[in-house]
Amino acid sequence: MVLAVGALLIAAALSPRARAEDGYDLWLRYRPLAAERREAVARVSTGIVSPPQVSATLTAAVAELQTGIAGMTARKVPITSAITDGALVIGTPRSSALIAQLDLPLRWNNGGPAGPLWHDGYLIRNVALDGSRVTVIAANEDVGVLYGVFAWLRLAQTGGGLTELDVTSTPRIGLRVLDHWDNLDGSVERGYAGASLWDWWRLPDHLDPRYTDYARANASIGINGAVLNNVNAQAEILTAPYIEKVAALASVFRPYGIRVYLSVRFSAPIDIGGLKTADPLDETVAAWWRAKVDEIYARIPDFGGFLVKADSEGLPGPQGYGRTHADGANVLAAPLRPYGGVVFWRAFVYARNSSEDRVKQAYQEFVPLDGAFAENVILQVKNGPLDFQPREPFHPLFGAMPRTPLALELQITQEYLGFATHLAYLGVLFEEVLDADTHAKGTGSTVAHIVDGGVFGYARTGIAGVANVGAARDWTGAPFTQANWYAFGRLAWNPELSAHEIADEWLRMTFSSEPKFLETASSIMLRSREAVVDYMTPLGLAHLMGTAHHYGPAPWVDDLERAEWTPYYYHRAAADGIGFDRTASGSNAVAQYAPPVASRFADLAAVPDEYLLWFHRVPWNYRMHSGRTLWQELVRHYDRGLAEVEAMQRDWATLEPFVDTERFAKTTELLQIQAREARWWRDACLAYFRSRSGLSLPRGVAEPEHSLEHYESLRFPYAPGR
Amino acid sequence: MVLAVGALLIAAALSPRARAEDGYDLWLRYRPLAAERREAVARVSTGIVSPPQVSATLTAAVAELQTGIAGMTARKVPITSAITDGALVIGTPRSSALIAQLDLPLRWNNGGPAGPLWHDGYLIRNVALDGSRVTVIAANEDVGVLYGVFAWLRLAQTGGGLTELDVTSTPRIGLRVLDHWDNLDGSVERGYAGASLWDWWRLPDHLDPRYTDYARANASIGINGAVLNNVNAQAEILTAPYIEKVAALASVFRPYGIRVYLSVRFSAPIDIGGLKTADPLDETVAAWWRAKVDEIYARIPDFGGFLVKADSEGLPGPQGYGRTHADGANVLAAPLRPYGGVVFWRAFVYARNSSEDRVKQAYQEFVPLDGAFAENVILQVKNGPLDFQPREPFHPLFGAMPRTPLALELQITQEYLGFATHLAYLGVLFEEVLDADTHAKGTGSTVAHIVDGGVFGYARTGIAGVANVGAARDWTGAPFTQANWYAFGRLAWNPELSAHEIADEWLRMTFSSEPKFLETASSIMLRSREAVVDYMTPLGLAHLMGTAHHYGPAPWVDDLERAEWTPYYYHRAAADGIGFDRTASGSNAVAQYAPPVASRFADLAAVPDEYLLWFHRVPWNYRMHSGRTLWQELVRHYDRGLAEVEAMQRDWATLEPFVDTERFAKTTELLQIQAREARWWRDACLAYFRSRSGLSLPRGVAEPEHSLEHYESLRFPYAPGR
Repeated sequence: MVLAVGALLIAAALSPRARAEDGYDLWLRYRPLAAERREAVARVSTGIVSPPQVSATLTAAVAELQTGIAGMTARKVPITSAITDGALVIGTPRSSALIAQLDLPLRWNNGGPAGPLWHDGYLIRNVALDGSRVTVIAANEDVGVLYGVFAWLRLAQTGGGLTELDVTSTPRIGLRVLDHWDNLDGSVERGYAGASLWDWWRLPDHLDPRYTDYARANASIGINGAVLNNVNAQAEILTAPYIEKVAALASVFRPYGIRVYLSVRFSAPIDIGGLKTADPLDETVAAWWRAKVDEIYARIPDFGGFLVKADSEGLPGPQGYGRTHADGANVLAAPLRPYGGVVFWRAFVYARNSSEDRVKQAYQEFVPLDGAFAENVILQVKNGPLDFQPREPFHPLFGAMPRTPLALELQITQEYLGFATHLAYLGVLFEEVLDADTHAKGTGSTVAHIVDGGVFGYARTGIAGVANVGAARDWTGAPFTQANWYAFGRLAWNPELSAHEIADEWLRMTFSSEPKFLETASSIMLRSREAVVDYMTPLGLAHLMGTAHHYGPAPWVDDLERAEWTPYYYHRAAADGIGFDRTASGSNAVAQYAPPVASRFADLAAVPDEYLLWFHRVPWNYRMHSGRTLWQELVRHYDRGLAEVEAMQRDWATLEPFVDTERFAKTTELLQIQAREARWWRDACLAYFRSRSGLSLPRGVAEPEHSLEHYESLRFPYAPGR
Repeated sequence: MVLAVGALLIAAALSPRARAEDGYDLWLRYRPLAAERREAVARVSTGIVSPPQVSATLTAAVAELQTGIAGMTARKVPITSAITDGALVIGTPRSSALIAQLDLPLRWNNGGPAGPLWHDGYLIRNVALDGSRVTVIAANEDVGVLYGVFAWLRLAQTGGGLTELDVTSTPRIGLRVLDHWDNLDGSVERGYAGASLWDWWRLPDHLDPRYTDYARANASIGINGAVLNNVNAQAEILTAPYIEKVAALASVFRPYGIRVYLSVRFSAPIDIGGLKTADPLDETVAAWWRAKVDEIYARIPDFGGFLVKADSEGLPGPQGYGRTHADGANVLAAPLRPYGGVVFWRAFVYARNSSEDRVKQAYQEFVPLDGAFAENVILQVKNGPLDFQPREPFHPLFGAMPRTPLALELQITQEYLGFATHLAYLGVLFEEVLDADTHAKGTGSTVAHIVDGGVFGYARTGIAGVANVGAARDWTGAPFTQANWYAFGRLAWNPELSAHEIADEWLRMTFSSEPKFLETASSIMLRSREAVVDYMTPLGLAHLMGTAHHYGPAPWVDDLERAEWTPYYYHRAAADGIGFDRTASGSNAVAQYAPPVASRFADLAAVPDEYLLWFHRVPWNYRMHSGRTLWQELVRHYDRGLAEVEAMQRDWATLEPFVDTERFAKTTELLQIQAREARWWRDACLAYFRSRSGLSLPRGVAEPEHSLEHYESLRFPYAPGR
């Protein structure tokens, strides 16, 4: 008896049990290398020689080497004391006699003068040792060795040479921190990747293995701090039960060089302390904070410090008591200082009922306080003066606070850039910000050089990224959003890296090193952020997103409780023109920048197109550099944004041969959503601006799919992230 | 040069990359079998012979066989048309000439009279075919074949004989449904396993592979329906965009025989329909529902129907318009009926401001409506008359509605039993309910026989379990809570199964078949639910949990907005005694049961200890059957509950050799929390009841760790599940 079985042949391929790549492994996939490369890696990883006394950090480093090499070469690399050709010798001069005997330029080497490495920098060299060719991964501190191990594994995964290594790498910024906006109920503000990673409810007893993998991922890109809870802080995080929970997380993170920080609510002395006031100059308040800090350090000796959002968007702060932000920050900083802790004090403030241009207010508030902050306070400043828009000019505080260390706050989670759904590689945005020249002390005073202390000699340096990590299996909710976490870490370590090279190494580790794949995927990534700018807020427009949830277009909203929360406040489109005049004839926000910058931004002829409507109000028929009118140019940008996403879809489709089924399908599906939403953005914005300008769409331009009324009628009560 | 490497040797073992068992695979692990068993399974799975025309369901069945056999025997089983010894021949008589030629007792076999199988039952037989010994897995419908395949794989995994099979299995209950209390914002009411599994935001485009694995897991235990959203329903679920999302999920579930249902808000015609009323007798309302049902079926031809919570806990319903529950249900049922859809109408109602005993109200409300419901309405009744307590007597509606099909609603998620943290095997609770004898038509009128239609001949039968599934990697938040999902499905298929045998097969598939492991782990499971009863609410106590979140003890609460929401309402402890008099001298709730039951419950001498304080108010020195006073017995139960958890901890610790690292550690950690919380329950309740009774603790009994004031002061603003 014979039966045709035709369609059944596909059954095996359909088997749901064949575990796909679900993204959990991030860029630490360590997949088998092609034969030639596998041999090359194997030859330089014949054994691991580590110090006799290993710390938890060195144990983690060795484990990572073994895991990585086993994955790439299908071979278990022995831990050995024998120096042979191809050995990996790791350690610090203090822990390893082998490392000490090499004359390496490490700070504490041989008791001589300090070498060029910061304490968490590392050095990778191929040297001869006892007649054998070995690879040395050395550092002053164990965590530096761990960073060096991850760097070597990155080289091994991305195809770098491994036989003539002479790498010295030191982080340019001291505190490289992820800010989690995670609430104690497990929700994540502006989180689009599932619930909070922290299972507060079952901490401190239950330690999810994900906590370790989170720490590994961070350490692999040099992140050394994590603020565990939302800046819109719940006071309970400072109660004893939560301190126990935080201590449990700290114990998991410690071997990976990651300190924990907490966001605190300024009114905590009242909320949970039973005091009648939170006045920072009240001695009972100061005593309460001292006792609380002592309590924390008793459980977490390497606690990082506090992050504070105060007198901002309704949160309590020192101004409620007639005190300054410096008074507020300093009362927290004082007890932290002996322990080595810091206060990250956020500069994101703007007043209720102020007629002043919102983007000017942080500068006005904080510049007079320069020099008034305690030594261990770092002012944390968003990249732009508004709020994490697809594009903003750099924040004018950068360059304006010579005596106050400024940390740069970037948003990795895509609150305003399509959530975790849209493919928007933020390495490009981060690079643009870091490279922006403030001219604070002449040409070359880039934001990066402000933040890394180069310009003003800040004793402390920091950078923070608002995390896009959640309990989603792939951590960030989508394959490509992982790249934004990665790019943040890499740029925090070295702001000189280019977004392009970061994309390249991330793609190699996360997907494939096939040239055809790399070329196309890299192109998609590098174009993606500008596409978002184009279909959402081109030419210096900003904050056109839907109210509160920030999903989709809503440029028509003009009637919220606070004017500066409305899109209309920012574009002011009317029959006579569009844009916010921030020159001397308007709010004069340009004057907050150094003169070379200010004059460029203020000059209609000189201002870059991408900031035009941010700084200027112009008529619809204003003639652009391109020769087109503003209206034509605006339409063109919206069209281009949509066209770019459609091109990304086509390009991605060609990559199917190089990508596993699950991640290919997910990216394809998300690009489909992105294309639909890009069209929605374009159509809704053009329909609206047309209604304001009274102009027609240029010939050949597609009509919006629906009426303006349709777009205005849409409601999204269950948008995520709130 | 020689270095000691001592501690480093553990590094490899510590490697975080060695993927542990994270629980994702549930009971479908298909791990390699021991050699002898592997051979035995291999001999009866030499090839898969499937019909030439395969449906998506048969494709799934074949894929599952291939996956399972490959996992167990490390061998790819071919799909073939050759009948050889050891072949697995699957199909229906209509699709497979091979099956048709066998004289199997299937309903549609050979056009003869119907066989004994329901349409989704299956038959597994070892037969000779063309001179070869084969295993036939046959059914009337493809979904029955899928169920048969899962049954065969279960036998293969659990060590059952595979050569003399003659299994006929038909589900006793027609609609076997999971109720998800998932909100559209991704939260889950009474969910303790992460966010909702449904990524509403990115549906319908993005189809998470988990949806398929969810369907597989359900199909493997015979579940054939899923209500996707919370009974506290948001009206938007019925808008066009959400219907598209639901349709996408339905398309994933369809091959696995799972229909989707939706919870609807009774006021939807107003909320999203623009009507002024939701009066079920208003023709515009009826027309709105007709149109909505048509709209749904146009997209989801096998849509299951609606679940409705109405006039309950503040939700809108027909009574707001002076109509009855039957009026409300029937207006929804009418348009569903031609499509084959049903209405599950919940009986969980109790009035605001009623002086009537809460547990009597559902009976009073619904018994007069018996016979008034449309044919396709099923009244969904919780197992007990209160609300999913650790123990309740069965609901008196069971047996009291001869003309209205009653579905049993069980709660799989542990709202009142320690969330996903406590190990509480609910198979025991479900079995207790199903086996409870209502005496509605004489002895043997068990709840199971009411629900399966045996007693009253219901034309439709159903059972619902409130799901404990979320986006947690292990689905249910803990290794052992998976067993409650499993037990629900198995008992829904066959209420005659014992909780013990279900635990045994679940343990074998989920962990190990080692006798030592099975003996101990099974003992832990079977004792666990009684332990919870003992440390929370022994001797018929109920509803002592913390307000709203239901976490931890709060017997002292007596001042909520509604008296029947307070613990005090249920225990009424005072100097003269404790308990709720539900005999004729009190609320006379006992009279709602059939006379043999009522007389037993009403009789202080006959009432089982476990229901004593549910039905009776007795003095503290009341002499129990044991000879001890009530007070002594109460203390003893609380002590025993705690001791049982501590014994579970010790027993679990002995199982380390049999369990993978990750699940062993997680269970250990959760038992640690459970033990601490069991102590808290015991201590707080004894401290409170002591304060009410004025009695001392018996000699030798441990003092509560803290003062009553301490326990009363505890607050849990971020408890999960709300």
